[in-house]
Amino acid sequence: MNAGKSTALLQVAFNYEEQGLIVELYTAAIDDRYTVGQITSRIGLSREAKIFDANLDFLSLANSSLSCILIDECQFLTEAQVTQLHKLAHLHNIPVICFGIRSDFQGNPFPGAARLMCLADDIEELKTICSCGSKASMNVRVSEEGIRIREGAQVSIGGNATYKQVCPKCFYSGE
Amino acid sequence: MNAGKSTALLQVAFNYEEQGLIVELYTAAIDDRYTVGQITSRIGLSREAKIFDANLDFLSLANSSLSCILIDECQFLTEAQVTQLHKLAHLHNIPVICFGIRSDFQGNPFPGAARLMCLADDIEELKTICSCGSKASMNVRVSEEGIRIREGAQVSIGGNATYKQVCPKCFYSGE
Amino acid sequence: MNAGKSTALLQVAFNYEEQGLIVELYTAAIDDRYTVGQITSRIGLSREAKIFDANLDFLSLANSSLSCILIDECQFLTEAQVTQLHKLAHLHNIPVICFGIRSDFQGNPFPGAARLMCLADDIEELKTICSCGSKASMNVRVSEEGIRIREGAQVSIGGNATYKQVCPKCFYSGE
Amino acid sequence: MNAGKSTALLQVAFNYEEQGLIVELYTAAIDDRYTVGQITSRIGLSREAKIFDANLDFLSLANSSLSCILIDECQFLTEAQVTQLHKLAHLHNIPVICFGIRSDFQGNPFPGAARLMCLADDIEELKTICSCGSKASMNVRVSEEGIRIREGAQVSIGGNATYKQVCPKCFYSGE
Repeated sequence: MNAGKSTALLQVAFNYEEQGLIVELYTAAIDDRYTVGQITSRIGLSREAKIFDANLDFLSLANSSLSCILIDECQFLTEAQVTQLHKLAHLHNIPVICFGIRSDFQGNPFPGAARLMCLADDIEELKTICSCGSKASMNVRVSEEGIRIREGAQVSIGGNATYKQVCPKCFYSGE
Repeated sequence: MNAGKSTALLQVAFNYEEQGLIVELYTAAIDDRYTVGQITSRIGLSREAKIFDANLDFLSLANSSLSCILIDECQFLTEAQVTQLHKLAHLHNIPVICFGIRSDFQGNPFPGAARLMCLADDIEELKTICSCGSKASMNVRVSEEGIRIREGAQVSIGGNATYKQVCPKCFYSGE
Repeated sequence: MNAGKSTALLQVAFNYEEQGLIVELYTAAIDDRYTVGQITSRIGLSREAKIFDANLDFLSLANSSLSCILIDECQFLTEAQVTQLHKLAHLHNIPVICFGIRSDFQGNPFPGAARLMCLADDIEELKTICSCGSKASMNVRVSEEGIRIREGAQVSIGGNATYKQVCPKCFYSGE
Repeated sequence: MNAGKSTALLQVAFNYEEQGLIVELYTAAIDDRYTVGQITSRIGLSREAKIFDANLDFLSLANSSLSCILIDECQFLTEAQVTQLHKLAHLHNIPVICFGIRSDFQGNPFPGAARLMCLADDIEELKTICSCGSKASMNVRVSEEGIRIREGAQVSIGGNATYKQVCPKCFYSGE
């Protein structure tokens, strides 16, 4: 998860606001690693954000004067919310930029991410590195003792497990 | 579906073979618009290909001397086959390039496409145009009489329905 | 030069025309490998095109009803012509898509290509392969006897020299 | 210039170091807006960096144990330095990532940037926004009084002029 997604999101917000344009930031209610309603980047940037859960209807923003909607942890969007955002962009002319991860610790897609990848007008990869030096594109879950965890629920935020980014070769090793 | 995927696939095969390298071409058994085992481009190019159905295990190619595997109609791959291809690329060093569409005529992802978008190292969009002049990123199903069909099975190849590419704004119009 | 640029250009033209939209194709007067005023792809596609030389002012197309201008061998555009095309796209709303190569047989940029890379709204690489299996991004000039030529004029079309695509490692080998 | 290039560079450095890998950061000696030898992002991140001027031979790093070289303000590289960096990447297996701008305040390419665009294996655009809401891809120079400056030297760092990012349509307006 550690490619700098939150940093990139906060920079885009900064760019818009420097031009006098209004943006709205959202992050998932599910993510309470830091504080609910906070987008925090490990490199040291932080900013308040609205939170979304599965009940939020993004089409309620259709008549706003927003120049851009920025969503962190977008893998937690429901499929219906992704369609709402797609309509916001194309029927209401409000650009939407979503930041998140594609696959979980078992290499399976998050439903919200799969729907985003299916509808997005542009897809950009924020690249990061595996400890072996190759490009990382997968996530593994690691226990407090540093042992890789291969079974469990797709979402496990707030426990003692952590995540690290690995390349596919390292991801499949030891299978 | 008509962005030139098959043309692009046949060109990549041509490029590899011009360098004396060996490639293998696959297309879906499900697609009998032209001939089973044929990759045909509307612009006028055509070439024989192996066919895949859900029973093919691509890891059987792990010890081949192929320089590249090229797969047309990749939205019909099973999720397990996508993982096999991911392993071929990263554990057996055989590049795999897949050509297909993301979403069906209702804007829902094909399961194979969703898995590909989740694992792919690189994602490139072959762009095409909506009749309104905007970039097309969606597909609609059209009856023989030219009427848009909004309900039905995800896969309907070989009937009299045809498909056309539209931008999201035209896709959502009339809802 | 052999990545399939002309194939890609002809496919884009096909896509536009299938939607009932009008396009105009150009190729460089300097390129008489096939026939002046012909865009020919080694894979077997061919089509007539207008030709451009350094005297053509593309802004003369500003009031046309074209939906897209497609330019092959765009490395031979002058810097002034690239600016004309940039203005056509942004001041006259006519999309322009240019196909060409970046660097010559010595790894130096073509002036027209450098200007295009400087101004383009989107840059896409048509990938091809080196005989060593790596991605090719450079061009080398080869004599009739198969010997690499390292000195000479930037443009040498129509002689007996041919070109092949190589990766940077193979490009620098033997220096 | 204000798309977040320095932020992105500092994030990549952070990503590498988090994996225990060693990177080296460079910025142009010419840029003394902040402090010589400092990469500073307007969003609030800052870090020391080595400086390069036209005399530095990057091939002196060929036998280092660096996992990545990160270069800010890369438009100020000489053409020879770009070739050195290209060789570092391909003959000495040290990845090089360069951050900079393509064109100057008159829409002309910086020589170092043109050479980088000609040789780079991958080109990614850090997008930012024009005050009109379109994507910005050009730079304009603005006087202390807020007047656009259209004539002058390509490089004018440290004066009272500032720069802002505009879309091509706004760039050409008033010509």
